Amino acid sequence: MPNPTAAMLVIGDEILSGRTRDANMHHLARELARHGIDLREVRIVADDHDAIVAALNALRAGFDHVFTSGGIGPTHDDITADAVAAAFAAQIDVRADARAILEARYAASGQELNAARLRMARIPQGAQLIENPISGAPGFSIGNVHVMAGVPSVFVAMVASVLPSLTGGAPLYSQSLRIERGEGDIAGPLRELAEANPDLSIGSYPFIRNGVYGAQIVIRGTDAARVDAAMVRLAGLFPAATA
Amino acid sequence: MPNPTAAMLVIGDEILSGRTRDANMHHLARELARHGIDLREVRIVADDHDAIVAALNALRAGFDHVFTSGGIGPTHDDITADAVAAAFAAQIDVRADARAILEARYAASGQELNAARLRMARIPQGAQLIENPISGAPGFSIGNVHVMAGVPSVFVAMVASVLPSLTGGAPLYSQSLRIERGEGDIAGPLRELAEANPDLSIGSYPFIRNGVYGAQIVIRGTDAARVDAAMVRLAGLFPAATA
Repeated sequence: MPNPTAAMLVIGDEILSGRTRDANMHHLARELARHGIDLREVRIVADDHDAIVAALNALRAGFDHVFTSGGIGPTHDDITADAVAAAFAAQIDVRADARAILEARYAASGQELNAARLRMARIPQGAQLIENPISGAPGFSIGNVHVMAGVPSVFVAMVASVLPSLTGGAPLYSQSLRIERGEGDIAGPLRELAEANPDLSIGSYPFIRNGVYGAQIVIRGTDAARVDAAMVRLAGLFPAATA
Repeated sequence: MPNPTAAMLVIGDEILSGRTRDANMHHLARELARHGIDLREVRIVADDHDAIVAALNALRAGFDHVFTSGGIGPTHDDITADAVAAAFAAQIDVRADARAILEARYAASGQELNAARLRMARIPQGAQLIENPISGAPGFSIGNVHVMAGVPSVFVAMVASVLPSLTGGAPLYSQSLRIERGEGDIAGPLRELAEANPDLSIGSYPFIRNGVYGAQIVIRGTDAARVDAAMVRLAGLFPAATA
């Protein structure tokens, strides 16, 4: 059976403007590979209601799971929860279970649960909460969409909360070989190896470092013995390379 | 007149599998902001013909420019040029101008222009070449799509080749203020400031660092005086903050 598929939707003006680099994508990609869920697409859109709704509807129809990051805080630019509700045509309002979590949290820290903070308890009807052990305000899952915060430490914690509940497939196993030769010299034998192993994914990632041309060849598959055998064959073709 | 819009399409199995972090997105985002072109969306798809064609057709219809990164080398997994040709229903074959560039390059370095390397001269009919001063093999522009390499040093050089030929708008000007208070305390006054300045984009990017909750408030706009005035007002609302 093929592995479940996934897409990620990053809601992030700050990434599109070049102000920050995204860190959550890299974390999610590694965790999904380990869990046997194939990440097939990532989209980054601005804090724009229509753009979020359109991307969500395209991705949730195309993949088994969609993970979102960003836009669920208390400020005016946090519009993800309402956009997700709109995509599902679900009612959204402050929900008692989420409100109780925030009340306990702010009571313990002596801070006021004001109107802005209460927005973080707006959860679509029918959604399941995702625990946030870092800062309290929960994420949520609705249908096949998992809505998580953008702050990296909170995102990491929410991924850890939600992933164990999802059925994974065979973890992706990979091996790589660094070959210090131009890709043009590697390409012929590599194509033959790829054609002889249609069950494996064989990628060539070229680099230029200190004037040296080379490529990192990565062989991936769910059958570790098949990956290892192809790697042995590859190393035999390029004896000077280092695994 | 509003600034031209852009999207980026990253072709990259290696990012989706969690093996590497993308660096090109961050570079392009900063360069476009400086050039007055608004980056509105980024998509990352796998080395999959149909996925590349579908994303290209969606993005080139939705934005003034599309910049792609990756998949134009000599190996079997480099399928971007053919996918772009398919998206435009354009003929593609080894083109004399691109071939001449590669011939000169490999003659100078004493390397063989073999069949694999010659694939890098496959350019769709009607496309303009994008110069690659680093490793020779050119990118190309067809319609509103600019096709560039994934190796970061080559990507940077190609962006520098192509950007000056595109009409930009007003560069985006931004200022930021770090406020060490929970976003819930900032949110109310910030919403009022945003509503009073509909021509500016005001974003709040929360952080948790060493147990301190805070947010970086970023004000962006094309009119520097308006951005500065809003920043003065914001700093007055939160006197302890540091710009």
